[in-house]
Amino acid sequence: MSALLPVRDTLDIIGGKWKILILISIWEGNKHFREIERSIPKLSTKVLSKELKDMEENQLITRTVLNGFPVRTEYAATEHSKTLEKVILELHKWGVNHRKKIFGKESVVVNSDDA
Amino acid sequence: MSALLPVRDTLDIIGGKWKILILISIWEGNKHFREIERSIPKLSTKVLSKELKDMEENQLITRTVLNGFPVRTEYAATEHSKTLEKVILELHKWGVNHRKKIFGKESVVVNSDDA
Repeated sequence: MSALLPVRDTLDIIGGKWKILILISIWEGNKHFREIERSIPKLSTKVLSKELKDMEENQLITRTVLNGFPVRTEYAATEHSKTLEKVILELHKWGVNHRKKIFGKESVVVNSDDA
Repeated sequence: MSALLPVRDTLDIIGGKWKILILISIWEGNKHFREIERSIPKLSTKVLSKELKDMEENQLITRTVLNGFPVRTEYAATEHSKTLEKVILELHKWGVNHRKKIFGKESVVVNSDDA
């Protein structure tokens, strides 16, 4: 099953609870640690710090220290990170369909446009 | 970021080290617990047992107990599980491209058709 190694790589890099949320927060324009932290409920400072380092190693984000007073650190998404959009779209579509499959028969569909 | 819930659902359901490997093992024709276990190096009995239960709950596989002597239990992939093929394909493609991006500059490309 060595053909599966790239699948595992991807799951290692974007899996878990936080990385995709952090990436989207940065895509949405949050640049500073505290901004990103505030934008994601329940994400601890320690975990955010670790996740940002992992994401920087994987070239999904850059970290720039700006001289000045006070010194500021800015995070930005890389071009490479944008190649994840399609993956995230597929994960999203599957999650939506899966919920319908598992819960759909029992639930009342109020508005069929809400998918 | 409630739009992200389906992405998290999907990562919960197929994330981690083992579930996709187990699903592929079953897709490849392994039906019995011991067969699946043998097909995946380093997967422990305890973890396989838990993963199979999770996957059954999520309707990715079925578990059938066949009367006879000895009683046998067979696992089979559901039609619903096949909707994961496209997701796995995207995860795979991204993993391949990511390796090229991260390690590519140092490696010799022997055949440009191998993507």
